[in-house]
Amino acid sequence: MKLVTGVIQPHRLDDVKSALEAAGIRGMTVSEASGYGRQKGHTEVYRGAEYTVDLVPKVRVEVLVADEDAPTVVDVVVKAAQTGRIGDGKVWTTSLDDVVRVRTGEHGDAAL
Amino acid sequence: MKLVTGVIQPHRLDDVKSALEAAGIRGMTVSEASGYGRQKGHTEVYRGAEYTVDLVPKVRVEVLVADEDAPTVVDVVVKAAQTGRIGDGKVWTTSLDDVVRVRTGEHGDAAL
Amino acid sequence: MKLVTGVIQPHRLDDVKSALEAAGIRGMTVSEASGYGRQKGHTEVYRGAEYTVDLVPKVRVEVLVADEDAPTVVDVVVKAAQTGRIGDGKVWTTSLDDVVRVRTGEHGDAAL
Ligand SMILES: Nc1ncnc2c1ncn2[C@@H]1O[C@H](COP(=O)(O)OP(=O)(O)OP(=O)(O)O)[C@@H](O)[C@H]1O
Ligand SMILES: Nc1ncnc2c1ncn2[C@@H]1O[C@H](COP(=O)(O)OP(=O)(O)OP(=O)(O)O)[C@@H](O)[C@H]1O
Ligand SMILES: Nc1ncnc2c1ncn2[C@@H]1O[C@H](COP(=O)(O)OP(=O)(O)OP(=O)(O)O)[C@@H](O)[C@H]1O
Ligand SMILES: [Mg+2]
Ligand SMILES: [Mg+2]
Ligand SMILES: [Mg+2]
Repeated sequence: MKLVTGVIQPHRLDDVKSALEAAGIRGMTVSEASGYGRQKGHTEVYRGAEYTVDLVPKVRVEVLVADEDAPTVVDVVVKAAQTGRIGDGKVWTTSLDDVVRVRTGEHGDAAL
Repeated sequence: MKLVTGVIQPHRLDDVKSALEAAGIRGMTVSEASGYGRQKGHTEVYRGAEYTVDLVPKVRVEVLVADEDAPTVVDVVVKAAQTGRIGDGKVWTTSLDDVVRVRTGEHGDAAL
Repeated sequence: MKLVTGVIQPHRLDDVKSALEAAGIRGMTVSEASGYGRQKGHTEVYRGAEYTVDLVPKVRVEVLVADEDAPTVVDVVVKAAQTGRIGDGKVWTTSLDDVVRVRTGEHGDAAL
């Protein structure tokens, strides 16, 4: 099993969700984050002035997938999150030892 | 060292905390998340109408443990989080290269 | 590629950011968390009374780095976050399969 994590522009979340759904992916975890990349946020625009210039709001999306689906999921997230402007984000992949579905106690690929 | 991560029902957090404590686990990180699983949230109930139907509030719990304790911690979290209803969540395990205790600079199992 | 994750005292975030910048690290993701360590928060002080005594507010910092930079980044985060008091936090390192820069689709070290 793999965990694909993306830190993306908040306004791309709906498209990423739809794209994952269209690709047959049936689960996702979302949370709030902020950050900066190589430009340290100075040229990134975000609505308000609530955040310091170098910590721009982002959204974290996480998808648990079978090994063979990981490259596709990465691709789907990258394509759906991409605007071509700086600050579009990062997507990374981690190998997992195990996954469990809490309701049933199923382990491994059966838990996905 | 392993990192055990659970995305669970918020109302199970207190029981998960108590169960970990009872199992002798001495640390935990908690954060807010939301998400959907195989039913895309449509049949999951959550208090208000503050969230879109397909992103149901969840809580993330993370526990750093020694390798030999990981299966027990997974089990404790799963059992304490389980209600038997859809949306109960997922628990996964990742292998870590290293852990450091910030106060002392200790590395590895000594940092747990 | 490695992911270095720190759960630190919120008031150390600015110093951690500056220290990473001074070390030439060009990106970081920040999010909110809370937790407890070996003392279960009972002797840790935090401003208000908004949180239960055993879940003390922390900040999570995450840094994606090339393998050879991981030990340095761990060191920089630990040193900058350290106050010498209990509750200073943990820093851990995970190996990644891949990283992608969303804007360009670059993979691997080129995406860092
Ligand atoms: N090295 C890094 N470590 C951790 N998070 C990062 C890193 N680089 C970027 N991020 C996260 O991704 C978000 C978006 O980064 P960004 O897309 O600006 O990366 P970048 O490498 O500067 O690419 P670009 O040149 O397209 O802007 C940041 O706000 C931060 O949350
Ligand atoms: N594939 C997945 N990737 C990432 N997070 C997931 C995934 N599936 C579920 N989650 C997270 O776990 C939470 C609970 O999921 P849920 O328990 O509904 O999983 P499920 O596989 O649909 O199991 P069940 O059939 O018991 O409902 C979701 O809200 C989401 O945050
Ligand atoms: N075993 C653990 N698993 C997950 N998170 C942990 C663990 N231990 C500590 N943390 C996280 O790190 C934060 C700070 O922990 P803390 O620095 O108190 O660790 P400690 O091992 O008790 O060290 P110290 O003796 O210096 O207090 C906690 O609030 C929690 O978020
Ligand atoms: Mg950038
Ligand atoms: Mg479900
Ligand atoms: Mg402590």
